Amino acid sequence: MTSSIFDTHGPHPEPSTLVAFAENPIDSRSEHRADDCIAVALRTEGAHVLAFCGGKLIVKHDEKIIDPLFAPYELADLKPRLDDAVLLGFLPNGEPRLAIPMDVAPEDLPAEFKLAEGRELYRQQMLSDDLLGQFAQGASLIVWNASTRFCGKCGSPMAVKGGGYRRACTACGHLAFPRTDPVVIMLAIDVERDLCLLGRSPHFPPGMYSCLAGFLEPGETIENAVRRETQEESGIAIGRVRYHASQPWPMPHSLMIGCYAEAKSREIRRDDQELEDCRWFTRAETAAMLARNTGVAETGEAHVSPPKGAIAHRLMRDWLEWDRGA
Amino acid sequence: MTSSIFDTHGPHPEPSTLVAFAENPIDSRSEHRADDCIAVALRTEGAHVLAFCGGKLIVKHDEKIIDPLFAPYELADLKPRLDDAVLLGFLPNGEPRLAIPMDVAPEDLPAEFKLAEGRELYRQQMLSDDLLGQFAQGASLIVWNASTRFCGKCGSPMAVKGGGYRRACTACGHLAFPRTDPVVIMLAIDVERDLCLLGRSPHFPPGMYSCLAGFLEPGETIENAVRRETQEESGIAIGRVRYHASQPWPMPHSLMIGCYAEAKSREIRRDDQELEDCRWFTRAETAAMLARNTGVAETGEAHVSPPKGAIAHRLMRDWLEWDRGA
Repeated sequence: MTSSIFDTHGPHPEPSTLVAFAENPIDSRSEHRADDCIAVALRTEGAHVLAFCGGKLIVKHDEKIIDPLFAPYELADLKPRLDDAVLLGFLPNGEPRLAIPMDVAPEDLPAEFKLAEGRELYRQQMLSDDLLGQFAQGASLIVWNASTRFCGKCGSPMAVKGGGYRRACTACGHLAFPRTDPVVIMLAIDVERDLCLLGRSPHFPPGMYSCLAGFLEPGETIENAVRRETQEESGIAIGRVRYHASQPWPMPHSLMIGCYAEAKSREIRRDDQELEDCRWFTRAETAAMLARNTGVAETGEAHVSPPKGAIAHRLMRDWLEWDRGA
Repeated sequence: MTSSIFDTHGPHPEPSTLVAFAENPIDSRSEHRADDCIAVALRTEGAHVLAFCGGKLIVKHDEKIIDPLFAPYELADLKPRLDDAVLLGFLPNGEPRLAIPMDVAPEDLPAEFKLAEGRELYRQQMLSDDLLGQFAQGASLIVWNASTRFCGKCGSPMAVKGGGYRRACTACGHLAFPRTDPVVIMLAIDVERDLCLLGRSPHFPPGMYSCLAGFLEPGETIENAVRRETQEESGIAIGRVRYHASQPWPMPHSLMIGCYAEAKSREIRRDDQELEDCRWFTRAETAAMLARNTGVAETGEAHVSPPKGAIAHRLMRDWLEWDRGA
């Protein structure tokens, strides 16, 4: 039964479609770009721009409408840095879409504009899912370009190529490509006691607990990174690891790799530099935390999960919902 | 049935343990390092060094023994660049292990030393599995350090910190961390016809066909990257995607993310810039290609798979073996 390869027995056919920043209709065509692709795109009928200012997105807002799309002619007062413009790609109807950093000072923004940060955009559901995906793509590329102005090998200035998808050293020719940092994020499960392991970082909002997470290190498999990070942060030994979902996380340019991790020990030894608390939660406690974050219950002083759209929220919810998909 | 989360129904509990470069007994303790950790490690009893020269590993060899481990006192003639030394971490017995680039010219190497490249090391099984993992870790970090000598933000020199796991700008303070590039590599399966899709890059050895692969782009999920790359390289539309295994790939510092991809179309439109051939293979053809690569059959003019240890080899073999695990 070959088809069984694709029957993964979870509650959703593809949980990666259910997280924030994952949906994006843009076809980047990143490997087939002429050097004048930005100029051509800006002259093309239907071109629109996501405008960034110091890592935040500039959005037009009045009462209930939030619109992050600027026509090129609307940008002049925002002082676009066209040399650092990024061509995101093309919508299905062929319209080009770009991301451009602006030199306008935040205090000089007109009153009908405001700045929004990535977490705010998805937590407050300020953008449609497909615009959120374009924000993720644009924010990652803008930050990468800004941190790749000079050649790491020789220190000379780098020139933008391929509409912001490459940079080339003007002296030694070294080529640099956009960077994406793999992060493992995992829900450790004690199968026997039917508990999950959550931790609290000091910089979390009050009451919030989430999955443990950390950057994958050079030379590691995903599974080994999950075991090492869980061990380091909580002291819990991990056996089997199961990949569940992935999520682009543009703060600044990570790929969250969400996994379930089978706990093989019970006694927590918390890394107190990383976490201010770490404990086991029952299914009922986890369900209550999720409910508090979806408007079903009040927050108050109680524990709360990460918001809907966070991959940690998905891992917690899908653990509870696993039976449904069997 | 919570335990069902960890029952993945494949032929192996963790296929990532069966690929080259994946095994590594080193505890990096990368977040708990003093600035003098390299000097202390080099003075510690039992310290050993992997010596690199222009991206290749220097190994001692005589007749049948290949030994890549140097005691610090053995390095003098190889001109170690101690400023670029990397502390990999510690073996279970506490002995430190390092990776250090050497300034010796390849032609000046003593006759009992030779240079070996990453692909050669695993194809010819020159190192034990755990040394291969240490090579992957070291090679990735050496290349990353060498391409991060200058600050991408301001162009000033970067100083090594944390034993080679960070670099900090001497002028603006910008911090840089090791880079790992996620690559999706996928075996597309036509479930109805029971065929798999393989391609041939012009730079492959004669007769070799492998899985399609490509870098994940900013803002993509793993699943969307699999669909985009398959579409771009072969014109085949992909439905469901199933993660199977991951592999560190230190040429220079990638993470291979191996997936099965459910083909939803049949007609191949090959990207002739990337591939010189792309076609469907039956199970029998695939089995024959794998057999030719494990010494079971002769190569001759026939098609051949990537070698044992390559994640593409694993994806092909586990497709054939899938039923066994059900």
